[in-house]
Amino acid sequence: MTEPCRDTLETFENPFPDRDYLIETVAPEFTSLCPKTGQPDYGVLTIVYIADKLCYELKSLKMYLQEFRNHGAFYERVTNTILDDLVAVTNPRWIKIEAAFTPRGGIRTTVIVEHGKKSN
Amino acid sequence: MTEPCRDTLETFENPFPDRDYLIETVAPEFTSLCPKTGQPDYGVLTIVYIADKLCYELKSLKMYLQEFRNHGAFYERVTNTILDDLVAVTNPRWIKIEAAFTPRGGIRTTVIVEHGKKSN
Amino acid sequence: MTEPCRDTLETFENPFPDRDYLIETVAPEFTSLCPKTGQPDYGVLTIVYIADKLCYELKSLKMYLQEFRNHGAFYERVTNTILDDLVAVTNPRWIKIEAAFTPRGGIRTTVIVEHGKKSN
Amino acid sequence: MTEPCRDTLETFENPFPDRDYLIETVAPEFTSLCPKTGQPDYGVLTIVYIADKLCYELKSLKMYLQEFRNHGAFYERVTNTILDDLVAVTNPRWIKIEAAFTPRGGIRTTVIVEHGKKSN
Amino acid sequence: MTEPCRDTLETFENPFPDRDYLIETVAPEFTSLCPKTGQPDYGVLTIVYIADKLCYELKSLKMYLQEFRNHGAFYERVTNTILDDLVAVTNPRWIKIEAAFTPRGGIRTTVIVEHGKKSN
Amino acid sequence: MTEPCRDTLETFENPFPDRDYLIETVAPEFTSLCPKTGQPDYGVLTIVYIADKLCYELKSLKMYLQEFRNHGAFYERVTNTILDDLVAVTNPRWIKIEAAFTPRGGIRTTVIVEHGKKSN
Amino acid sequence: MTEPCRDTLETFENPFPDRDYLIETVAPEFTSLCPKTGQPDYGVLTIVYIADKLCYELKSLKMYLQEFRNHGAFYERVTNTILDDLVAVTNPRWIKIEAAFTPRGGIRTTVIVEHGKKSN
Amino acid sequence: MTEPCRDTLETFENPFPDRDYLIETVAPEFTSLCPKTGQPDYGVLTIVYIADKLCYELKSLKMYLQEFRNHGAFYERVTNTILDDLVAVTNPRWIKIEAAFTPRGGIRTTVIVEHGKKSN
Amino acid sequence: MTEPCRDTLETFENPFPDRDYLIETVAPEFTSLCPKTGQPDYGVLTIVYIADKLCYELKSLKMYLQEFRNHGAFYERVTNTILDDLVAVTNPRWIKIEAAFTPRGGIRTTVIVEHGKKSN
Amino acid sequence: MTEPCRDTLETFENPFPDRDYLIETVAPEFTSLCPKTGQPDYGVLTIVYIADKLCYELKSLKMYLQEFRNHGAFYERVTNTILDDLVAVTNPRWIKIEAAFTPRGGIRTTVIVEHGKKSN
Repeated sequence: MTEPCRDTLETFENPFPDRDYLIETVAPEFTSLCPKTGQPDYGVLTIVYIADKLCYELKSLKMYLQEFRNHGAFYERVTNTILDDLVAVTNPRWIKIEAAFTPRGGIRTTVIVEHGKKSN
Repeated sequence: MTEPCRDTLETFENPFPDRDYLIETVAPEFTSLCPKTGQPDYGVLTIVYIADKLCYELKSLKMYLQEFRNHGAFYERVTNTILDDLVAVTNPRWIKIEAAFTPRGGIRTTVIVEHGKKSN
Repeated sequence: MTEPCRDTLETFENPFPDRDYLIETVAPEFTSLCPKTGQPDYGVLTIVYIADKLCYELKSLKMYLQEFRNHGAFYERVTNTILDDLVAVTNPRWIKIEAAFTPRGGIRTTVIVEHGKKSN
Repeated sequence: MTEPCRDTLETFENPFPDRDYLIETVAPEFTSLCPKTGQPDYGVLTIVYIADKLCYELKSLKMYLQEFRNHGAFYERVTNTILDDLVAVTNPRWIKIEAAFTPRGGIRTTVIVEHGKKSN
Repeated sequence: MTEPCRDTLETFENPFPDRDYLIETVAPEFTSLCPKTGQPDYGVLTIVYIADKLCYELKSLKMYLQEFRNHGAFYERVTNTILDDLVAVTNPRWIKIEAAFTPRGGIRTTVIVEHGKKSN
Repeated sequence: MTEPCRDTLETFENPFPDRDYLIETVAPEFTSLCPKTGQPDYGVLTIVYIADKLCYELKSLKMYLQEFRNHGAFYERVTNTILDDLVAVTNPRWIKIEAAFTPRGGIRTTVIVEHGKKSN
Repeated sequence: MTEPCRDTLETFENPFPDRDYLIETVAPEFTSLCPKTGQPDYGVLTIVYIADKLCYELKSLKMYLQEFRNHGAFYERVTNTILDDLVAVTNPRWIKIEAAFTPRGGIRTTVIVEHGKKSN
Repeated sequence: MTEPCRDTLETFENPFPDRDYLIETVAPEFTSLCPKTGQPDYGVLTIVYIADKLCYELKSLKMYLQEFRNHGAFYERVTNTILDDLVAVTNPRWIKIEAAFTPRGGIRTTVIVEHGKKSN
Repeated sequence: MTEPCRDTLETFENPFPDRDYLIETVAPEFTSLCPKTGQPDYGVLTIVYIADKLCYELKSLKMYLQEFRNHGAFYERVTNTILDDLVAVTNPRWIKIEAAFTPRGGIRTTVIVEHGKKSN
Repeated sequence: MTEPCRDTLETFENPFPDRDYLIETVAPEFTSLCPKTGQPDYGVLTIVYIADKLCYELKSLKMYLQEFRNHGAFYERVTNTILDDLVAVTNPRWIKIEAAFTPRGGIRTTVIVEHGKKSN
């Protein structure tokens, strides 16, 4: 299996670029490895964005997220990296990622990152 | 079965046009086909609007939504099309559609579109 | 059984008129008839208001709502009528009614009406 | 789209035929048509069985169930037909189908059919 | 509106009389009147049976249950009466009715009646 | 307020004495006092029985249970006493009481008592 | 048992008076009597406040609330009285009470009162 | 804090020894230490028994369970030890303990032990 | 990462071998690969057993289950293999595994396997 | 076991200091002692913050929170102390702690403290 790479992400043209609308994707089967212990981490990723010219294609998003399966990184870095990759590839008007990881040592962590301004 | 067509939608006169009030309709049995694979997609549509002169009639809305049963279209297009059709037929003061599709490949997608301004 | 009539509603003096506070009443057993088919409709009414000089008395509210049992009217009309009757009888500073009807033909409808201004 | 036909169902050899064990499949996206009104029906199928020599293959089960999408039949017939088809193709030691249909006219129906004897 | 009468119930031939299988019907919108106070009672009826030669038709069941809308009877009598009527009309191998009424005076009552033997 | 006394309980004739059927009553607002500390205890009583000649009347049951409001007794004694009183007054074929008390000191207690044989 | 009296409430010094922070207390076992019928009412009190110099002591709050056990008063009066007593004794920067009473006659009522201004 | 010792457990006479009835106690705040790592473990203990001559007193049970707070032992040993202690002190007709521990390393364990025969 | 191998499983002596008691382990983070598509599968394993002389050690169970992370096998084979490995290593009096896999193509599968006789 | 000390808390450099993002940590297994009675208290801590230069390390947070296990302090003090310690060690742009304690005497308390300004 390969390492995470933003080139895996494919896009298609936003069919309604004149309208600001929200697309929310929930990926509940995300898994990566802890860089310290090598043990698996699991989490639920919720990505919501307002596309500009491009939307990410869902199957390629799935393949991209699977590349983290045997990749080691801390929660904060994983979440910010996915945000940076999605921004680089689709350049959305606004995007937010909420990554809720399952408990470790009885403690549960969620990381929430955002890019751009949401026209309220 | 026929293709989706806004002519199916019937309306009646808003009985209280002097008052801004919300009408919310939840249609949990929406289904269409994926244009790539031909496989069925399923979703829950939540439509909420402030009528101006016209309200859509519920039975005709049901018939209109059933016309998507054997129609192929991506999530983003389906949702925006329904919005455009409802706006064309009822010309509401404000309308929002939230379309929550069931998971495919372990990934769940929701599309949220809005038209007009909600007088808060 | 009689037809709905606002005279059924009784009031009592607001015991704390100097303070803006909320009174919420949930009536989950509302039922009326569909004017087209004669079939029963069911719904949950949530009434919340800030009283001015008068509060409605709960038992009389129950009797008033029961008068819709064999009365035929559409969702939008029923909800706005109840609002108008409560406003006429208690003249509240603010009032909102949310009427959530049970599904018909797989489709669920909620009507939300409001009167007056809620201070913050 | 084609009519339901048991030839769509494919099988594979039970990998552990010496052991009685349960395989449960839940298909929450079943839909067919009402033969009287032509309106769509929706339901959740739960199939549980003890295989003998053959297991049904999941993708072919999905394709088989999709063949009911534009097929008209009453709840009782649909459920018994699926049972008969699965028995004809896999000849299981025991099988049970529970088909829970979504409400129509405010009334919800579930049909439960069984074939063979469950040891224990 | 008419009084409850078993003649309202229609039947159709059991399509699979050679097989013992369960049909469960849930009617969550049952309502009748309290014979003492005239106040409405509400409840959820769950009917489950093994048909012999006849099944009850669902739309006629709905019409039959609606005949209790303005009829006064105690919980125990209502539930046993419905059982007797269904037995008289369909003569099932086994039938059970569970009637769960909403709370009155903070107290909630359920009546469970059964007829015939369920071949386990 | 008076002390609990079985004379408060009223009965009526079982309308269907030839049939064994279940009547379940849930009283979620039961409260008594702890005999040691004088502090209130709260609990949910679930009474289920098969009547013989007599049923208990619900309003009198409510009044009887309210007589425990300022009465001091331990959980085990309260539950067995209510069973004994209901048996004395209605002489049922079978009766079971489950009394689930709210937590005290972080510990939650339920007492379950039964009388007679339930014809399965 | 005594009548409700604000003297029962004890206080202690706010340990962090320089910081605005919220203290929320939920008392799910509140009970009083209906002044009209003498029947018990039950409810869940949620008190949330920003203390100034004084906090109320929890055990004394419990004792104070228990004094309503055999006291008769309407929902609106009970809630406003508790607010007035807590304000008189602790003089908080802000306080809100939400009193959710259990259903009577199928209707559920919540009273929400507030005092002072919540910074932010 | 002291080590767990069955002498902490106090008993009282079963008030209804002629009747077999169930007493269920749920203690959701149990905590002990892992003997290998010294890290705290948490769990929910559910104890259900049919007393013979003696019942355990609830406050002493709470004190006894708190003695495990700084005590190190594996799940299987803790659960069997508590069973043995309760049997030694109250000699019940039947007793069962279910100890559901919170997840460690993403894995959740429950231990269920029983003593004596439950009539029925 | 290595392939699944029963040598990874470690055991310890059953501390109470004279008593039949249940140990239940829930592992909600199981993942393997589909042998046909190479795509990840996810599932929740519930293992419950009555130990004879040996218990499996939890940390080694976790390591053993992680060896399936990059291993390809069908649901039925994975579940039966884990059962065989646990039986080979601990030789329990009775053991049952329930493996509930997350939906694929809208269809959810659970496999339930058992070994030995549970003394009821 | 030692007393709570902020020196236990370790930090690491915020990997994305140029971006304001939220890190939420939920610790559901917090326990301390009541300073008056010596009895254990239990609670769920939710910490959410926007890091500046430093993040707290999760394992050290767990060890720090465990130091409260045999430490006596009131709810308000415990919560404010943890806030002060986390601020002293990580100097975040914004931080909020919500400490929800389990019921005592039937009453449940939550303390919510905040430091710094959250850039909306």
